[in-house]
Amino acid sequence: MSAFPSSLEVLVEKFASLPGIGTKSAQRLAFHFLSLPDETAQSFINALQEAKNSVRCCTVCQNLTDSDVCAICSNPRRDERVICVVSDPKAVAAIERSHEFGGVYHVLHGVISPLNHIGPDDIRIKELVTRVAEKDVDEIIMATNPDTEGETTARYIARLLQPFNVRITRLAYGIPVGMSLEYADDLTLMRALEGRQAF
Amino acid sequence: MSAFPSSLEVLVEKFASLPGIGTKSAQRLAFHFLSLPDETAQSFINALQEAKNSVRCCTVCQNLTDSDVCAICSNPRRDERVICVVSDPKAVAAIERSHEFGGVYHVLHGVISPLNHIGPDDIRIKELVTRVAEKDVDEIIMATNPDTEGETTARYIARLLQPFNVRITRLAYGIPVGMSLEYADDLTLMRALEGRQAF
Repeated sequence: MSAFPSSLEVLVEKFASLPGIGTKSAQRLAFHFLSLPDETAQSFINALQEAKNSVRCCTVCQNLTDSDVCAICSNPRRDERVICVVSDPKAVAAIERSHEFGGVYHVLHGVISPLNHIGPDDIRIKELVTRVAEKDVDEIIMATNPDTEGETTARYIARLLQPFNVRITRLAYGIPVGMSLEYADDLTLMRALEGRQAF
Repeated sequence: MSAFPSSLEVLVEKFASLPGIGTKSAQRLAFHFLSLPDETAQSFINALQEAKNSVRCCTVCQNLTDSDVCAICSNPRRDERVICVVSDPKAVAAIERSHEFGGVYHVLHGVISPLNHIGPDDIRIKELVTRVAEKDVDEIIMATNPDTEGETTARYIARLLQPFNVRITRLAYGIPVGMSLEYADDLTLMRALEGRQAF
């Protein structure tokens, strides 16, 4: 027999089903939650409910938003003719933090990954193609992650978009700023050499 | 401007307010939650709500329960005359797992900790004293954690219960089963020597 009441057991199970949370952490989280003052606990519950109810995908770029068209797509100062293609909303947040990009995004919500049974139709590629076909787009910047799956996805999309009169580029590979060369892996160093630029 | 919709930002904040969850983990949890199918997400929300609504403290032993008197206290086969005093419900669960204890518990919900401004009145000590005064208790087993605060709390309670005709014991200190002596700290070894038993 468990020493915990069943509703607490259920709560621990739910927390344990979240990624990166083991049974011990789940227990700690459940106890913490129960120890919260009523209104703090309620506002946690409300935040979950509210996010689940209101967050959806932008009809233009597929980024997460709580309106029909996201804040970036509806901003008239963003250049609609430059589309940066990323795998997920976290990448949008990362690029926005750099304050360097004035175009718009397209969020794929995944990458092609045959091992995980994710094909081109399982991510938002056709929405991108429709967008390029219907709108006046100058440049597509592929900004999927620099790993095998991100690379494959980028190549697949680049080939798909070839018929359209659009420039396709991708983020530069190279040494991360502040990194010691000593710790750079061979592939990164090779790419950094290949992509060397004039001073 | 944040690239996330505000309800998502709020959700990330809420997750980040949980113990041991940093901003990156909170983001991952929030995205994971949003990606859940509607009914899975709803059952997570319901589990939180249900636990918060139904879990309270047992009127006898103060352990968490979803009825008035917990399953252990209301079990007629448990010996009410032996009370094991622990600091929190997790300790009850740990002792129950050993299947070695047939008595009942008293959960203090904390330990005396002057540094954290927790005095004897902030934890459930007076409930224990009332219990010992009103009921026929043979033995009180102090099972607070073997650290300074747990020790202090145990001593404080032991002194408080001296006027009553009750045996007060505490868990044995010693080498944990399966541990290599090499890694035992000095204090544990000292306690293990002090408490040595005849073969």
